[in-house]
Amino acid sequence: MDRLTIIKVGGKVVENPTALNALLDQFVRITGNKILVHGGGNTATEVAAKLGIETRMVDGRRITSQPMLDVVTMVYGGLVNKKVVAQLQARDCNAIGLSGADLNLIRARKRPVQDIDFGYVGDVNDVNSRELRFLLNENVVPVIAPLTHDGKGQLLNTNADTMAAELAGELANYFSVYLFFCFDKKGVLMNPDDENSMLHELSASDFQQYQNDKIIAAGMIPKLQNGFQAKRRGVKEVLITNTENIMTGRGTRLV
Amino acid sequence: MDRLTIIKVGGKVVENPTALNALLDQFVRITGNKILVHGGGNTATEVAAKLGIETRMVDGRRITSQPMLDVVTMVYGGLVNKKVVAQLQARDCNAIGLSGADLNLIRARKRPVQDIDFGYVGDVNDVNSRELRFLLNENVVPVIAPLTHDGKGQLLNTNADTMAAELAGELANYFSVYLFFCFDKKGVLMNPDDENSMLHELSASDFQQYQNDKIIAAGMIPKLQNGFQAKRRGVKEVLITNTENIMTGRGTRLV
Repeated sequence: MDRLTIIKVGGKVVENPTALNALLDQFVRITGNKILVHGGGNTATEVAAKLGIETRMVDGRRITSQPMLDVVTMVYGGLVNKKVVAQLQARDCNAIGLSGADLNLIRARKRPVQDIDFGYVGDVNDVNSRELRFLLNENVVPVIAPLTHDGKGQLLNTNADTMAAELAGELANYFSVYLFFCFDKKGVLMNPDDENSMLHELSASDFQQYQNDKIIAAGMIPKLQNGFQAKRRGVKEVLITNTENIMTGRGTRLV
Repeated sequence: MDRLTIIKVGGKVVENPTALNALLDQFVRITGNKILVHGGGNTATEVAAKLGIETRMVDGRRITSQPMLDVVTMVYGGLVNKKVVAQLQARDCNAIGLSGADLNLIRARKRPVQDIDFGYVGDVNDVNSRELRFLLNENVVPVIAPLTHDGKGQLLNTNADTMAAELAGELANYFSVYLFFCFDKKGVLMNPDDENSMLHELSASDFQQYQNDKIIAAGMIPKLQNGFQAKRRGVKEVLITNTENIMTGRGTRLV
């Protein structure tokens, strides 16, 4: 199977022009099929504040009222996505910006209200990769914003790590998939203040143990859960790393 | 050649949920290849105002400062575009939202400063329809936001009528193209207050005469210039109409 690299980068990278330039310079050097999945949460929070819309987060997830959904649709689907596309085009990389609604790529359901009403937040139902694979075969590079739809006309705000993992899991049926979660640390750290405490490998059973012992920070847990789920679905390699190490392959490898 | 219908609708339609629903119900009934090109200017003006950014228009064209470019990128490329895509998907129409930067679809140059500095406004250089035709052949329906890029990483704000006409002109090399400019009148009126004064046909020479006699309203002139240019490039039919008449073919036909 052909190789496909999926890079997920958070808002901190795509929102900082210097960091974004460095990322894209690395990204275009990746050979073979590739997909970039991005966040944009800080900009969404800033734009929301300027519009008088308060940002409320629970466990690192954004409560998405109707006005907040409009903000994330504007920021993720428009501002961040199109800027990244234009800058990849400037590097002769034939990028296309997509949300989960485009090409019916990712359908989701509005998260049921339990203890917390997350509002217009979507949990992924299924990934329809048909036209996406078509584009990859044409050497097009998808740039994916963390928005999905419910198939009934409703857009939904969906976590970018989850989108990357779901895409990776589905595309593992067709490609040898390498999934990189890039964030601001070199990898998973045993001690968040010490980069030398990075784990080179992490197994599902160790992950369970570290969670029980509260060694792994709460914010890392959903990312790692997504990563292990992708592994179980046949993704060849899942790496937790930073953007500087996209080419070196250094970071924490899920095993 | 296969038929391709290109529908351009302004902000007044896509920004009004009832009008948008009516449009999309009509649009999905169009058989064969189709493309929707949309505006969104009123929403951009509203969002800009809420963000404290003043809207300045000259001859109906928006002066596009850097902050205003961010607003139109958010509104055209994100909010309006993705809502339309989600609502087409709800009608089982496999829509994809695109700007001129995606797939390097439309390259433009920043308009040179003459009497007026329009800021980040783009005049179209060329249309690269290769991947767009690919998508059309796959029964995908492009929904196009009025943004272009300069190939060097800069997004530019570009008039939606111009984008529709440029796409039509280019695609006339491959399809039998029907271009519909939908606005809020039934067609070109000799008397703007009387819908019965609609012209059923308008020739380029009559258009010139009506311009000299100041019979055609100033706001219609760029739209008609775009329409006649598309005709000269081989577009089979150019119709100035409203959304109610997409299926009837009533309106002002350029001849």
